[in-house]
Amino acid sequence: MTTSESGRSGEIGEGTDQPGYLAAVTDLLGALAYGELRAFSQLARDADLAPTLRHRSALATLAAHELKNYAVLTERLQSLGVEPETAMEPFVPAVDAFHERTSASDWLEGLVKAYVGEGIAQDFYREISRYVDDATGSLVVSVLEDTGQADFAVSVVREAIAADPRLAGRLALWGRRLVGEAITQAQRVGVERDALASILVGAPGRAGADLAELGRMFVRLTDEHSRRMERLGLSA
Amino acid sequence: MTTSESGRSGEIGEGTDQPGYLAAVTDLLGALAYGELRAFSQLARDADLAPTLRHRSALATLAAHELKNYAVLTERLQSLGVEPETAMEPFVPAVDAFHERTSASDWLEGLVKAYVGEGIAQDFYREISRYVDDATGSLVVSVLEDTGQADFAVSVVREAIAADPRLAGRLALWGRRLVGEAITQAQRVGVERDALASILVGAPGRAGADLAELGRMFVRLTDEHSRRMERLGLSA
Repeated sequence: MTTSESGRSGEIGEGTDQPGYLAAVTDLLGALAYGELRAFSQLARDADLAPTLRHRSALATLAAHELKNYAVLTERLQSLGVEPETAMEPFVPAVDAFHERTSASDWLEGLVKAYVGEGIAQDFYREISRYVDDATGSLVVSVLEDTGQADFAVSVVREAIAADPRLAGRLALWGRRLVGEAITQAQRVGVERDALASILVGAPGRAGADLAELGRMFVRLTDEHSRRMERLGLSA
Repeated sequence: MTTSESGRSGEIGEGTDQPGYLAAVTDLLGALAYGELRAFSQLARDADLAPTLRHRSALATLAAHELKNYAVLTERLQSLGVEPETAMEPFVPAVDAFHERTSASDWLEGLVKAYVGEGIAQDFYREISRYVDDATGSLVVSVLEDTGQADFAVSVVREAIAADPRLAGRLALWGRRLVGEAITQAQRVGVERDALASILVGAPGRAGADLAELGRMFVRLTDEHSRRMERLGLSA
């Protein structure tokens, strides 16, 4: 990481060329990469629950897209001289725990999880990209590219609720459980990984977001989540 | 299918513009497409059995590659005016039966299955591409592009056998079971789908392979399988 790469150092504070910053970016990319790899597995499994080949193929395509993101993130780790496996390893327990505790019991739950989970992840990527150097930030934003898969999830879930309105209550509850588990595991990571947390809250020699800004970020993330639930026809 | 597209009509006989030929090509692409979609699911699941993140990511990448092939095949079906789901549906029972009867019980079995299964499929694609019109043939060959994943499987399996030579017997047996089940399901498809069978054995107004040529094809397929098993360090 050279100082010239950290063009936004005014915004993120000085010190992006410190070893501490490399550790932080390694944590960030490692967490995102393992998140994508695990999401791939999960979506591929959920695709098998699909009622038709068309639905199955749509979810499988979404899974393959996660793996493309995974490749981008691990290539970046390698270019920083970091072994991707080493960077991902610390995040395996939290990411796995999230998925184990939110194992979809049917096709619709899988689809809501794909849509809501991917949405939260993308919003979080977009937020965090503001606190890292330009090169890392652009890369993180590049894996956000919308694939139009969201429309698919929305139309399928809405159709299912129109056909059986009782589904709305169960799926709304499911959406809340997804967010709850995501927050639980994110907190666990925040406590265990000082380096990663330092991207947001700063570190000696490098400013982060102040408390007010962290509060606003949290509001933005939950607002977006509510909007996504509404688009599915569900209360947040 | 226009006559101008079937440039090899001299080789495959006249009549590639007949409705029967479209039915045959639809069957071929439908069978291959569902095979790829199902292989995707299987590899994605087997990736979860991997002992390390590096191995897991390699198998997941192989899975994503199958899905790319799937997309190529279904786009071709659509361009022929055929709904991919309709084309795939008849092959779901045989392909699913193959995978259910050859469910890998551990990571190495999954890897041998990926390598051997993909190898047989690719050899078969290559053989059958000689009996269809040029446009279909080139497309089928385009999904053969080697991804270098084979080297990965070979080195991992050989290392495992070097560390525990008793594995060789079990995995050799496993390889034979894979081929046995593949032949069983292929025969089932051949009996049930006249249109597909007609690509190989011909149809009224269109010549296929004669018996001697079919025999030679079978020899080539089994020879290649034996070579693959040898590369893994296993007896065929």
